[in-house]
Amino acid sequence: MTQSRKEFEARLRQIGAERYHDLHPFHHRLHGGQCTPDEVRAWVINRYYYQHSIPMKDAAFMSRVEDPALRRAWRSRIEDHDGTEDNEGGIRRWLRLAEAVGLDPDYVASCDGVLPATRFAVDAYVRYVREKSLLEAVAASLTELFAPKIHANRIEGLLRHYDFADDSSLAYFRNRLKEAPKDVAFGLAWVLDHADTAEKQDAAAKALIFKTDVLWSQLDALWGAYVEPARIPPGAWKPDTGLRMRQAS
Amino acid sequence: MTQSRKEFEARLRQIGAERYHDLHPFHHRLHGGQCTPDEVRAWVINRYYYQHSIPMKDAAFMSRVEDPALRRAWRSRIEDHDGTEDNEGGIRRWLRLAEAVGLDPDYVASCDGVLPATRFAVDAYVRYVREKSLLEAVAASLTELFAPKIHANRIEGLLRHYDFADDSSLAYFRNRLKEAPKDVAFGLAWVLDHADTAEKQDAAAKALIFKTDVLWSQLDALWGAYVEPARIPPGAWKPDTGLRMRQAS
Repeated sequence: MTQSRKEFEARLRQIGAERYHDLHPFHHRLHGGQCTPDEVRAWVINRYYYQHSIPMKDAAFMSRVEDPALRRAWRSRIEDHDGTEDNEGGIRRWLRLAEAVGLDPDYVASCDGVLPATRFAVDAYVRYVREKSLLEAVAASLTELFAPKIHANRIEGLLRHYDFADDSSLAYFRNRLKEAPKDVAFGLAWVLDHADTAEKQDAAAKALIFKTDVLWSQLDALWGAYVEPARIPPGAWKPDTGLRMRQAS
Repeated sequence: MTQSRKEFEARLRQIGAERYHDLHPFHHRLHGGQCTPDEVRAWVINRYYYQHSIPMKDAAFMSRVEDPALRRAWRSRIEDHDGTEDNEGGIRRWLRLAEAVGLDPDYVASCDGVLPATRFAVDAYVRYVREKSLLEAVAASLTELFAPKIHANRIEGLLRHYDFADDSSLAYFRNRLKEAPKDVAFGLAWVLDHADTAEKQDAAAKALIFKTDVLWSQLDALWGAYVEPARIPPGAWKPDTGLRMRQAS
């Protein structure tokens, strides 16, 4: 049976409450200050791959949108990440974080050393948006609903526990606190408007679950590879490589 | 054998000299003032489908570009067509032309009545850019090399021969005269830089030929359907439909 707007929104929010990656032990470890410098670096390297793929995902979405007005509304997401003349953009901000944790930003930007499991998960997301319905693509983006909380916790936890954390290195997260709400308000309204049958509501909910899997599995991979007992797969980043010439203290 | 930059550029330009759609009889008819109002309308309706698909094509390209700098350089193409806060954009400008020739812009924007052959050709271009190499995708965009001449001829020819033609209705073409040169300078340099083997040069040349086919076949379809003896296929636009309530004089 088709749920009311309110019921359906509650169902989507419940998915976040149960499955969003703020519940993953890696984040507790990171925000609680238990990560070693190398674990933080591994997170920064692997999460960069996600960041750098997000505008590709958004372009894949736009490449399927016939309505110029919807394309215009979506375009700011690409600008937020890739940057504009007056905005350095999320990707460059992420590379500042990479530098702050002692990594060579060029190494991070090369995406060498990213875990294969990270690539598989992230590439699956880009492909999902390219291939599934527009409704499913927009619904998958709704993990942004749950992001402000994790970003706020992250800023607080990193500032408290790690020397590298300051306004410059954490600029990515502060900016997302400003940018994400407008995107998600648009995306949520769009999904609530367009998921007007039980079948579409199920598809949208499934898409959001899929996306929580994409995020969660990246942290699983990170944990398996870099948290003791570390089992780094062949070819992935090894501690003591890819560092800045002059190491952050 | 790999051609020098200069030889290869000359080869690309020769493709335009032999195959660009400024050579098509429909354009001679249009620019020479021999088109009936309905033929002009059919052109405006069908060409809209191409216009409205171009940002999808550019987003498809960006969805495959890993390098944020290349994505940033490409993004202005989408802005030029979809518009920004201070720029109405090419698609809205095209709809002003639609209104000026007596069509209901909502009808034109609906893409109802577009010839199937137009859809097939334009969709093939979007798919080409989604599936082929980045080099082939950029090379296909190089028909812009030949566009300023056709736009200048068109502005002159339309102003001389048709009552609907004025600064407002022809704004699309005037703007393209300003926008296209920066895009094509970037695209040409990129292709010359990246087509560094004979094999890649052949692929790039073939891509440009493909694109000239996409443009040419749209005019063939238009001619076959709307120029006497008109053979309008089922479902395509019929004269006296899709008009503005108050018809342009």
